[in-house]
Amino acid sequence: MSKGTVVLAYSGGLDTSCILVWLKEQGYDVIAFLANIGQEEDFEAAKKKAVDLGAKKVFIEDLRSEFVEDFIWPAVQANAVYEDRYLLGTAVARPCIGRRQVEIARKEGAQFVSHGATGKGNDQIRFELTCYALYPEVKIIAPWRIPEFYNRFQGRKDLMEYAQKRGIPVPVTPQAPWSMDANLMHIRWVRPHILELSHGPADLYLMTKNPEDAPNTPDVLEIEFTNGVPVKVTNIKEGQSKDSPLEIFSYLNEIGGKHGVGRIDIVENRSIGMKSRGIYETPGGTILFKAHLDIETFTMDKEVRRIKQALSIKFSEFIYNGFWYSPECDFVRHCITKSQENVQGRVQLSVFKGQVYILGRESPKSLYNEELVSMDVQGDYDPCDASGFIRINAVRLREHHRLQSLADNKQ
Amino acid sequence: MSKGTVVLAYSGGLDTSCILVWLKEQGYDVIAFLANIGQEEDFEAAKKKAVDLGAKKVFIEDLRSEFVEDFIWPAVQANAVYEDRYLLGTAVARPCIGRRQVEIARKEGAQFVSHGATGKGNDQIRFELTCYALYPEVKIIAPWRIPEFYNRFQGRKDLMEYAQKRGIPVPVTPQAPWSMDANLMHIRWVRPHILELSHGPADLYLMTKNPEDAPNTPDVLEIEFTNGVPVKVTNIKEGQSKDSPLEIFSYLNEIGGKHGVGRIDIVENRSIGMKSRGIYETPGGTILFKAHLDIETFTMDKEVRRIKQALSIKFSEFIYNGFWYSPECDFVRHCITKSQENVQGRVQLSVFKGQVYILGRESPKSLYNEELVSMDVQGDYDPCDASGFIRINAVRLREHHRLQSLADNKQ
Amino acid sequence: MSKGTVVLAYSGGLDTSCILVWLKEQGYDVIAFLANIGQEEDFEAAKKKAVDLGAKKVFIEDLRSEFVEDFIWPAVQANAVYEDRYLLGTAVARPCIGRRQVEIARKEGAQFVSHGATGKGNDQIRFELTCYALYPEVKIIAPWRIPEFYNRFQGRKDLMEYAQKRGIPVPVTPQAPWSMDANLMHIRWVRPHILELSHGPADLYLMTKNPEDAPNTPDVLEIEFTNGVPVKVTNIKEGQSKDSPLEIFSYLNEIGGKHGVGRIDIVENRSIGMKSRGIYETPGGTILFKAHLDIETFTMDKEVRRIKQALSIKFSEFIYNGFWYSPECDFVRHCITKSQENVQGRVQLSVFKGQVYILGRESPKSLYNEELVSMDVQGDYDPCDASGFIRINAVRLREHHRLQSLADNKQ
Amino acid sequence: MSKGTVVLAYSGGLDTSCILVWLKEQGYDVIAFLANIGQEEDFEAAKKKAVDLGAKKVFIEDLRSEFVEDFIWPAVQANAVYEDRYLLGTAVARPCIGRRQVEIARKEGAQFVSHGATGKGNDQIRFELTCYALYPEVKIIAPWRIPEFYNRFQGRKDLMEYAQKRGIPVPVTPQAPWSMDANLMHIRWVRPHILELSHGPADLYLMTKNPEDAPNTPDVLEIEFTNGVPVKVTNIKEGQSKDSPLEIFSYLNEIGGKHGVGRIDIVENRSIGMKSRGIYETPGGTILFKAHLDIETFTMDKEVRRIKQALSIKFSEFIYNGFWYSPECDFVRHCITKSQENVQGRVQLSVFKGQVYILGRESPKSLYNEELVSMDVQGDYDPCDASGFIRINAVRLREHHRLQSLADNKQ
Repeated sequence: MSKGTVVLAYSGGLDTSCILVWLKEQGYDVIAFLANIGQEEDFEAAKKKAVDLGAKKVFIEDLRSEFVEDFIWPAVQANAVYEDRYLLGTAVARPCIGRRQVEIARKEGAQFVSHGATGKGNDQIRFELTCYALYPEVKIIAPWRIPEFYNRFQGRKDLMEYAQKRGIPVPVTPQAPWSMDANLMHIRWVRPHILELSHGPADLYLMTKNPEDAPNTPDVLEIEFTNGVPVKVTNIKEGQSKDSPLEIFSYLNEIGGKHGVGRIDIVENRSIGMKSRGIYETPGGTILFKAHLDIETFTMDKEVRRIKQALSIKFSEFIYNGFWYSPECDFVRHCITKSQENVQGRVQLSVFKGQVYILGRESPKSLYNEELVSMDVQGDYDPCDASGFIRINAVRLREHHRLQSLADNKQ
Repeated sequence: MSKGTVVLAYSGGLDTSCILVWLKEQGYDVIAFLANIGQEEDFEAAKKKAVDLGAKKVFIEDLRSEFVEDFIWPAVQANAVYEDRYLLGTAVARPCIGRRQVEIARKEGAQFVSHGATGKGNDQIRFELTCYALYPEVKIIAPWRIPEFYNRFQGRKDLMEYAQKRGIPVPVTPQAPWSMDANLMHIRWVRPHILELSHGPADLYLMTKNPEDAPNTPDVLEIEFTNGVPVKVTNIKEGQSKDSPLEIFSYLNEIGGKHGVGRIDIVENRSIGMKSRGIYETPGGTILFKAHLDIETFTMDKEVRRIKQALSIKFSEFIYNGFWYSPECDFVRHCITKSQENVQGRVQLSVFKGQVYILGRESPKSLYNEELVSMDVQGDYDPCDASGFIRINAVRLREHHRLQSLADNKQ
Repeated sequence: MSKGTVVLAYSGGLDTSCILVWLKEQGYDVIAFLANIGQEEDFEAAKKKAVDLGAKKVFIEDLRSEFVEDFIWPAVQANAVYEDRYLLGTAVARPCIGRRQVEIARKEGAQFVSHGATGKGNDQIRFELTCYALYPEVKIIAPWRIPEFYNRFQGRKDLMEYAQKRGIPVPVTPQAPWSMDANLMHIRWVRPHILELSHGPADLYLMTKNPEDAPNTPDVLEIEFTNGVPVKVTNIKEGQSKDSPLEIFSYLNEIGGKHGVGRIDIVENRSIGMKSRGIYETPGGTILFKAHLDIETFTMDKEVRRIKQALSIKFSEFIYNGFWYSPECDFVRHCITKSQENVQGRVQLSVFKGQVYILGRESPKSLYNEELVSMDVQGDYDPCDASGFIRINAVRLREHHRLQSLADNKQ
Repeated sequence: MSKGTVVLAYSGGLDTSCILVWLKEQGYDVIAFLANIGQEEDFEAAKKKAVDLGAKKVFIEDLRSEFVEDFIWPAVQANAVYEDRYLLGTAVARPCIGRRQVEIARKEGAQFVSHGATGKGNDQIRFELTCYALYPEVKIIAPWRIPEFYNRFQGRKDLMEYAQKRGIPVPVTPQAPWSMDANLMHIRWVRPHILELSHGPADLYLMTKNPEDAPNTPDVLEIEFTNGVPVKVTNIKEGQSKDSPLEIFSYLNEIGGKHGVGRIDIVENRSIGMKSRGIYETPGGTILFKAHLDIETFTMDKEVRRIKQALSIKFSEFIYNGFWYSPECDFVRHCITKSQENVQGRVQLSVFKGQVYILGRESPKSLYNEELVSMDVQGDYDPCDASGFIRINAVRLREHHRLQSLADNKQ
């Protein structure tokens, strides 16, 4: 008698392979679900492996286009960045994966979903809040939070032994000193054992070249935006251009990676309140972040920008904390989308040795008025007005000073 | 009969030299005041020139140390940045200059102050609000907003002619296509005539090398912070170190400049509501910004950080808009200073080809707990708690979904 | 030769009558425009008077319905309140009047608009920013800021003398000790001469009864909302109901006024930075404010509410400061409207002796789940989850304490 | 063998009496702790009862003064209010009780604390976060979240039976239809069984008279503030005055209660994400809230006020959610205290039929300048400045309109 059907977010690696087998041992039917969100993977091999391990069904789903359009693009519109530095590459991928997993679970009549995320991290939260929001009756099996599981598998050695006993193919390479989470947007590096913060990582990066080894000549790109999202990228020198979302983002990854753009090594605050170290490489995302910031400031009203900036900080926190599918995130996303109606135009930039330099911008919606700002042309502007403006702004400051002086004199 | 005494913020250049003479013509006694805030200048020559032009007195004041300690340091503590990009190098200098100018005016019994800032810019506002706040009864003469002045001097040519007639030494070099504002923190470049935005600047930078020509080997620095301000910088390879504020900042400028760090070309929103282009180079400030952000996130509580982040955005706007000396800026500065009590420790970073890379950090106030965050060690943490945490966070989301489904079914 | 045509915001009172004649003296053709926004006024008499004084044309426009629907309703949706107390009754009226005035000016080919607002107040700003935003080329004549005007008319006595000379009908009543600004939403009282703050107003109120004299029995109302705006009000006991915007609001004024609701006496901060005293009576607006707050909290998601609350504070400041017609106000209004999609249902309340008491509420969009919140029914809720929730929230607090103890022990 | 010692937050009522006995049954030594925070209670009888039930020790602690000074006063300084309506009377009491409970636990060497709060409410969170923050190693026993407990006691009937068997004195009165939580600041009413929202409460209030039955003559009070907290209250007519914190607050409760001030019936959002109904009566707190708001606006700079307002909203959320003892609450409290330095002066108000009317205010720190604001006196103010101020503010709006017109024309 089966306890029911579980849709397992399966990666093909050691952990989720063991979980697949363990779930079957516990009496569940297991459907393996592997999302292609741009990571390097032999998907066919992974499929075969899942079938061999006893998965009732295997779904390999190419989510790359929807990942770009439905998740990365809104983050670009928002200039989404967590704690001033992290571009949220993992955080935006989780709701994308979870959404499809839940669709499969509903379609296949599965009451359970499962995943291999650890019990101390953010991903369990992002994943599960997505599932609960979209499939409220779902039951979630998180083995790394189940004592029978985590007490049995206290380290990689235990998993390896289990794998060998159960006929799970075991990776022949020695364990890397760093684990990673890769997708189209970025790679996140986590070192499992030693987490000392006082030394930088050895050269572990994959998506990006070491800036020291990057080309000595910049690439110059022009990115065209409509409604705050890129619709075309052109390599000025080479004349090459891309205009579908997935191609645009992939090409920016290629150029950014070639020039070593988007590496950061930070300490961040996890949802559950502990600080952790994150090492990220986000080549294309970093280029887009800078380009979007530029065209946005060029075309968006100053005061709208201030409000949108505050909303974006909220939005970034919602994403980081796993609340992509929530009323508040829906609301803020709607507002941000509204703010992007005039964010249109072209940004030219050069990419070189880990840096992105904005070279220029132009837009049919530009709010920049050369004549108005010129020092030599008066334009429709009377400098005398500025005197009144300043003096009125000073009313409060002068009054404040007057009262302070009175107070000081009394003492 | 003198109309009274004016303290003129005098730079030694063509504009303020003409203003000096013009003010005398209008019947004022003029005291020339030239602040040394780190710009390249032959101060002795400027002094002599002012005397020759008829200044009653000339004050040349070295404000570099107080500029760093009283103005740049608070901006560092705040991670002050305007519209996500501009580090406020000009904006923090104005209240520093204005404060001394007003002290001189009070001491010398001058009822007037004057400056050469234009009528469309931010600096007039920053300068005058400082004066009004600290010397509420002062009268301000802003020639570029006085019709008799600006109608008479409609371009550089008019100023040159006037200079020649009045015996004012005229610069022999042809007018640079870009004007600039330089101080210890940065150089701002403004192109007077043509302000087209679609092309990047020719190579006009002075404080920073072109990253393409920068050294092929990084410099590695260690910056030590106490109360959120740097107290020591050490060049790891060379062993060199600095520990006074002015020396620290100057050294960071030197290293940043050598590696081409801190160049930006942006469109920004001026106080008076127009967009303008700013090209800035802020080498040392950029290094400090990144280093401080890192040590702060490492040592500051997550939720305190969120509140402080919002306060810093306000603080940056106050500075940009000229409200350094205001009750709200005082208040926010006080709060930010409070937030920095535990921002202490050392950050290691490398500087290379226009980029700053954080390599590591350590602190006696670190809130990072290796054991707590480790994937292999449980620490004082029960993974089961995360299930409850997630499920409670999902209560609202599931309820929302339930009601939406009800609504959808009704339709 | 006429200097051009001016559309004057004319009230029929002494000030704007004198301005009408003065403008003609200055060489302008004057079109008088009198908006009916619900104030008590003999509009026909005012029209006749304007014609007699030489107005080229007179427009009397009934703006009451659009005032309610286009200006008061958005304020209700926002729970708009300035500095925690002022419901913005004057501030929302200005853009309503200004919009029509500008329409008339455009239609009549007038290059000028004029008004009688003083040079120290908020209304000049609200009025003129509306005009500039909607008719950027317009020229504004604000006599109370023109030295020839305000030096000539230094007090009411000068205006009276001028009126007598020019055949302007002079009010026979002695000047009231308080001036007022009345519209459908409220009356604002301003005392022209003595502004001492330490004594309350004598009984000057017009829209509201003194609570001490109000009925000893409450009225009980039910207000129905859709999209955050009232669509029906019913007097439960009397069975009477209203369902057009203007009727609803007028009826709430009637009931609120009868029970002395909505009187406040406050000090507020004007746009131009000085503090002033405002005495307001806003009977219907106060009832609606409380009712809307209640139905909104009942039907809006908790976290959406927090964001909307912050947006509403901004919105209120924009309105107060005259920026109704601005990109930021458009943007925020759009966001707030979006937030109101589910704000639907009925609120029952009683109105009694100056107070509004919410008695109950119900809604098809209620987010309240009796079973979920019940202490006796478990519902779909596991109390054990709360333990995990609390312990995860405590991770950061316990860690903070641990580090503080370490620090304390070191000292 | 004892499992250890538990300090139980004991109220003397049925629930915590049963918990006391149940804890002993489970093998714990129990110390009963009963905090006097102003609720009506026969403390001696409660003590005797606890001893009779087998408590090892009983602590009855009078925390009223520290409750006022350490918890209510900061809330007054902040104008703390949750979701625009709830004055946080229960939320500020929890950390006060928890702090002492933890002190007792430490002193008595108890490793455990326990309480009778339910598993769906806010109080469990407020209580436990306080304990974890101040005593991180503590273990918490929350019976209403322990299945063996809550499955055994599924309703009041089960508790009654248990009480009878164990010799616990059983209340003779039938169960009230509403339970309550009372302290010096307020009474919160919760109806255990039926929570329908569409009908108002029967007259259950205890601290406040029904406004309909309240006196027909107002009381007029003068409250004096220093540093944003009341230091004296005087009944103007009766001449009576109080000047210690506890006496001041108690007297305001008396007057407020007599006139039916501070009743609200709201739906609020609990920390754990569900909406619940709260009926509160907060007589003295409501008077103080209005008085403080008034003196604060009178004496605080406009822009400081805006920042402080945002901090207060945060502060209120922290308190509501149980984070009184947290780094962020410490930080914000520090900032708010700083903001109160000039909040000094006297407010006169009348209290009548459920309402508080501000009559006047005066302060040595008043920022109100009668001459500056007067319509008849120019003061040190030039009305012409306002023209410049408005025109500069319009630069952006006119530019926006220009571009919109261009766009419209293109279409």
